[in-house]
Amino acid sequence: MPVNRQVTLADQPVGIPKESDFRVVESPIPNAKAGEVLIRTLYLSVDPYLRARSSGRLPSAQNLTPGEVLAGGAVGQVIESHDPRMAPNDIVEGMLDWQEYATAHAKTLRKIDPQVAPIPTALYALGMPGLTAYFGLLDVCRPQPGETVLVSAAAGAVGSLVGQIAKIKRCRAVGITGSDQKVRYLTQELGFDAAFNYHESADFQASLKQVCPNGVDVYFDNVGGGVTDEVIRSLNTRARVVLCGQTSQYNAERPEMGPRWLDQLIIKQARMEGFLVNQFSARFDDGLRQLAIWLQQDKIRYHEDIVEGIENAPRAYVGLLAGENIGKRLVKVAA
Amino acid sequence: MPVNRQVTLADQPVGIPKESDFRVVESPIPNAKAGEVLIRTLYLSVDPYLRARSSGRLPSAQNLTPGEVLAGGAVGQVIESHDPRMAPNDIVEGMLDWQEYATAHAKTLRKIDPQVAPIPTALYALGMPGLTAYFGLLDVCRPQPGETVLVSAAAGAVGSLVGQIAKIKRCRAVGITGSDQKVRYLTQELGFDAAFNYHESADFQASLKQVCPNGVDVYFDNVGGGVTDEVIRSLNTRARVVLCGQTSQYNAERPEMGPRWLDQLIIKQARMEGFLVNQFSARFDDGLRQLAIWLQQDKIRYHEDIVEGIENAPRAYVGLLAGENIGKRLVKVAA
Repeated sequence: MPVNRQVTLADQPVGIPKESDFRVVESPIPNAKAGEVLIRTLYLSVDPYLRARSSGRLPSAQNLTPGEVLAGGAVGQVIESHDPRMAPNDIVEGMLDWQEYATAHAKTLRKIDPQVAPIPTALYALGMPGLTAYFGLLDVCRPQPGETVLVSAAAGAVGSLVGQIAKIKRCRAVGITGSDQKVRYLTQELGFDAAFNYHESADFQASLKQVCPNGVDVYFDNVGGGVTDEVIRSLNTRARVVLCGQTSQYNAERPEMGPRWLDQLIIKQARMEGFLVNQFSARFDDGLRQLAIWLQQDKIRYHEDIVEGIENAPRAYVGLLAGENIGKRLVKVAA
Repeated sequence: MPVNRQVTLADQPVGIPKESDFRVVESPIPNAKAGEVLIRTLYLSVDPYLRARSSGRLPSAQNLTPGEVLAGGAVGQVIESHDPRMAPNDIVEGMLDWQEYATAHAKTLRKIDPQVAPIPTALYALGMPGLTAYFGLLDVCRPQPGETVLVSAAAGAVGSLVGQIAKIKRCRAVGITGSDQKVRYLTQELGFDAAFNYHESADFQASLKQVCPNGVDVYFDNVGGGVTDEVIRSLNTRARVVLCGQTSQYNAERPEMGPRWLDQLIIKQARMEGFLVNQFSARFDDGLRQLAIWLQQDKIRYHEDIVEGIENAPRAYVGLLAGENIGKRLVKVAA
């Protein structure tokens, strides 16, 4: 009889998470109740924000504790439905967590049409990362044609889409990234105007000036820390900064210290806004419709970085935090 | 024959400015050309932002260098006019700098009606501090009835107006200030709902919780530094922070270090915006009209802290940075 393999948090990670902070356990396959469906997971999303959720610093409802199954988005196939809205074989996306089988209320699931785009895109360009790039850039920052849009962690799932949407909006799209291979990916495959590898830059300001000769009008921040400190110095008057992630800080055991620069925001009359994609949930359908059009028009390209097997999910996650992925990291759980 | 006494910058201040960083010099009274007027200064405005302008860190056009007359707003009386818009004895406000006599283009001056309110209000509630409080609070932060508005340097020129405008907009107005006397001034004379003296607080978070039991929806920041670090932790979801000044940092010779907290802005989906009042210059007349109505309705009260004699302007300024003033500090130059 098949079992349900799940990935749980073994220990609250201290510093950089290790594979041993996670455990693969076996549980019985759950039973779907009225209104619910039973789903076999196909792909899991591996996201940097999980680090924050296992930091012990978030409000308790959002905090993962040892023994809990890792939270996360996934796509799967309906096996059994107790709700008229879903039927066996439907492909659905939802917060199914890191496990081979999940039950969920039908109303919490989004039905995916595999004719529109390949199934994994529901976790990427046509899913949470796509919506994050779309609303974070367009609604929070309102970029204007000709402005320079700079994004950190540019080769990641969200960053790679931010730059491409900036191009669609006739902005100059510039990426900060962590390897020369990623620089080539951004500029040669995704159409970014420029990108630079901050690990190889001896003078961050000089590198930034080279890729952003007219300064920075919009900064989409995925990383925080020293990278963001440097970018702040190059903001233009009335610049907008959206804070989407702070990956450089997720492993810190206590708040890292950094130079104060709020005076720079005054001098530049700049705005900075923290953003969670769910604040735009009422408009997700509009966003997904637009993203699907751009995908079909080949205005958005994407690269999936797929790791096979749920047993490798901890390794996939640890590697993500080390920056080894290009594009969206997924775990393929079943064919 | 009368001379024009002026206050110049003797040296670029290092750390906390001293009276000896300034010099009182004598110059000839300037001649007004066509389109200009000659003005005898009545009151000078003493403003914290001058510290930033003598820090050597601003763009050179805004930076005061040794030998220059201190920049600043003033009100004065027209002595001689070479422009049809102004006549002798008119009272005007403008950037006249720290001197007994100034010439200025008539078009850069605002004519003051002494029937509406006492003349010095043109440098306070009906001048730049009033407009700063008005647009910074209402336009940048858009406070809603019932929300908590917290302001730092609350007993200063801008802070004292911010709290009173918050009350007019049916918000809870709370001040952070630096003495028990100022706490009483805010709560007993100006109608703030609460205030606390952060110098006397052993536990800033506990004090903040006591005065802001429902958290902070709007934070009007005049000081930055450790005070702002603490406030960030108490922001509510979708809070708005306007950065108006960073007085705690103006004396620093290099950027001070502080704990990183941008992750808090993400968790709270909070917005932070740097603000210079001139970005609203097209609407100054509307703001001044509204402020005058509130003043006449006794909805806004103010306290002038007047130092006599231009020779005492350096002392007035050094004392301002030490927080010795309650309300707006002015120097009375002539009767």
